[in-house]
Amino acid sequence: MIEPRTLKGFRDFLPEAMIPREQLIDTARRVYRSYGYSPIDTPVLELLEVLQGKGGEESDRLMYHFRDHGDRAVGMRFDLTVPLARFAAQHIGVLGTPFKRYHIAKVWRGENTHRGRYREFMQCDFDTIGTESVAADTETVLVVHDLLQAIGISDFTIHLNNRRILNGLLAQLNLADQSGPILRALDKLHKIGADKVAAEMAATAGTSDEQAHQVLALSRVSGTNDEILAQLEQLLANNETGMAGIETLRAILRGAAAAGVESARIKLDVSIARGLDYYTGTVIETFLDRLPEIGSVCSGGRYDDLASVYTKERLPGIGASLGLDRLLAALEELQLIEKTATTAPVFIPYFDRDRLDDYLKLAAELRQQGLGVELYPESRKLAAQLKYADRRGFRFAIVAGSREFEAGQCQLKDLRAGTAQDLPLDAAQLATVIRSQLV
Amino acid sequence: MIEPRTLKGFRDFLPEAMIPREQLIDTARRVYRSYGYSPIDTPVLELLEVLQGKGGEESDRLMYHFRDHGDRAVGMRFDLTVPLARFAAQHIGVLGTPFKRYHIAKVWRGENTHRGRYREFMQCDFDTIGTESVAADTETVLVVHDLLQAIGISDFTIHLNNRRILNGLLAQLNLADQSGPILRALDKLHKIGADKVAAEMAATAGTSDEQAHQVLALSRVSGTNDEILAQLEQLLANNETGMAGIETLRAILRGAAAAGVESARIKLDVSIARGLDYYTGTVIETFLDRLPEIGSVCSGGRYDDLASVYTKERLPGIGASLGLDRLLAALEELQLIEKTATTAPVFIPYFDRDRLDDYLKLAAELRQQGLGVELYPESRKLAAQLKYADRRGFRFAIVAGSREFEAGQCQLKDLRAGTAQDLPLDAAQLATVIRSQLV
Repeated sequence: MIEPRTLKGFRDFLPEAMIPREQLIDTARRVYRSYGYSPIDTPVLELLEVLQGKGGEESDRLMYHFRDHGDRAVGMRFDLTVPLARFAAQHIGVLGTPFKRYHIAKVWRGENTHRGRYREFMQCDFDTIGTESVAADTETVLVVHDLLQAIGISDFTIHLNNRRILNGLLAQLNLADQSGPILRALDKLHKIGADKVAAEMAATAGTSDEQAHQVLALSRVSGTNDEILAQLEQLLANNETGMAGIETLRAILRGAAAAGVESARIKLDVSIARGLDYYTGTVIETFLDRLPEIGSVCSGGRYDDLASVYTKERLPGIGASLGLDRLLAALEELQLIEKTATTAPVFIPYFDRDRLDDYLKLAAELRQQGLGVELYPESRKLAAQLKYADRRGFRFAIVAGSREFEAGQCQLKDLRAGTAQDLPLDAAQLATVIRSQLV
Repeated sequence: MIEPRTLKGFRDFLPEAMIPREQLIDTARRVYRSYGYSPIDTPVLELLEVLQGKGGEESDRLMYHFRDHGDRAVGMRFDLTVPLARFAAQHIGVLGTPFKRYHIAKVWRGENTHRGRYREFMQCDFDTIGTESVAADTETVLVVHDLLQAIGISDFTIHLNNRRILNGLLAQLNLADQSGPILRALDKLHKIGADKVAAEMAATAGTSDEQAHQVLALSRVSGTNDEILAQLEQLLANNETGMAGIETLRAILRGAAAAGVESARIKLDVSIARGLDYYTGTVIETFLDRLPEIGSVCSGGRYDDLASVYTKERLPGIGASLGLDRLLAALEELQLIEKTATTAPVFIPYFDRDRLDDYLKLAAELRQQGLGVELYPESRKLAAQLKYADRRGFRFAIVAGSREFEAGQCQLKDLRAGTAQDLPLDAAQLATVIRSQLV
């Protein structure tokens, strides 16, 4: 006999965990689709050289890769961005631009499993490829906004930055070629403080005191969005790149306001950078006001060129990704997830052995009224069946035996409220009553 | 530069292919859920010994397997039944029975790719575990029925058999221990004819002429469902197993009729066997009346014990699986798939450069009315944008420029009909008109 178990770093999803996952994925799809993003899918396995791209040892070490039956070096995708780049390079002629796609699928990374990391997880990405218009930036922010709202979270803040602001400042200070070490130093600001960051910049990027002071001035920019914009304009008055970044921020704020987004939902935040090299313009992170410590639940940004490893065609774009597992953990902590192990609201106990066909008929008629119905498959004692219904989390039970079938009556039990009422055995009437009580 | 390409036997799904796939999966989920089946998920990678179970070289040869970073022998699942068995054995104490689950996910097989076989494909399984009641058999047939109807196919036939009928006949003929070679011979009946099957049975199973005649008599059973039942009762009058199989068929037919299934939708068919060893009772295959040659699009059956490799607990059950790729090919051939590359019905061209915020506002208001809306991200010539909308397959375009915004007017174009009407620039009114024309 073989011991039934999962691999370390992998997990099963039982119904109680899978039902809210499916619901969240459904909501993401619905919101993505409402903006005209279309679904695509790509293979889990790709040629190793395609997945490696210009990625270095890091991706190699994390990637599940092996030789297939034809002795080809193959790997399991570790994100959805590399497959999108390959896909776009291969099909863009057919797809045309702008191309808006979503892709909700699993990826695998052979990482260490300490700190609760899993080796298999779901990504929920959406991207707009082939345009540099700020309309796409604004829309990306709107999708994030609508998504959080549709999930049922009202108190969240979208942090917005533009990488051209720092780039502009560095150019203005003649430090454009030192952006790597400077970003790495700035990234430690919260941990080690301004003095040590200045010291590190001097050591690794050769900054003067004045240069370090100016760079750190950017991290002191704060206040309302309008105040931040005013401070940034002062800092970057003479720099075209920086001013373009500021103008993009302004345009996104204007567009989001026009689309009805409350101003408190978007906060300019020059401290977010998201990936030192990848993003080139707009950068987005999203925090839950009641759980900021879990980090960003939806992040993304603009990139200059998606697929330069695979094609000479330049493919700029912008996109973001919903952190499904993180968000589910947050929803659980905020008690926004209703625990249930069933997908159907109505349970029919089968307790009169000779009436199976009547139960099947009643269940079918209720389904035709649009209600999910589970019929217990065996004629057992009513109490045992109702205990099963309670454990599963059904909301209603419709109880009928021979006497009730003959009288055209039944009992509708509200299993949550613990109440019951006698009703005519009529699917349309039952459905009306049930729907009026299903909140 | 790396050539962007997929592995042999693998494929990308572009929006035009992925949209109907998502829709079909959605429909399957909706129907499964309407019967109280709940979603689960399991890892794509499992320990090789878990996947191998008692399976032999066949599964080994087809399976993608390798050693992971911890030098564990692991494999990618090749179906959803083995993971279900492992899952049920591991969790049944928590889950309880009856346990009804669906699982819609990808599986991988390193098969030969001739005959159009793919190495990565989607399975859509549903199963009821932990009951031997015929109620579960009937419900399985009802799910298949509702699923095909929900997909929009009205002319299909569910072929129904019960393995106990043949088993009973063989027991009656003292051939119970020869069921393997007899089934293999019977399986060739359509190809090689009765005489050659009789000869093969004599050679491989040692049947007498009379025994072969009796076995072949079963394959001549035909007529209406009632006629078939009468013939089977004659053949199996003295055999308890066979009569129990017949009674199960009767009960399913009765239950399905009670649930409102047209009698023409279910056809008793003693020739279907589906897997020589696996199924033990009810067996189901589903054929499209207009495309029978593509084979069964939804198949399944009852098994005595799901997980004996992993647990001593006996887990009988019944389930079936939707053949997603086959059904999509059929829907395409029957022209039941509408070609579109967009998920949103409404397109808004962005043709007045200074009015971006007005376009964003209009799009947001229409989305709040429940309509999917794509806004073109760049201000280009209207003709180019409408050409884009046509190619993508949008149904409507709402055209407005500065003059229209000032007058509170717009033009609603029906891109399919080629008509246009002037309407007030009011999201609620526009949504009402659009919805009334969206069929």
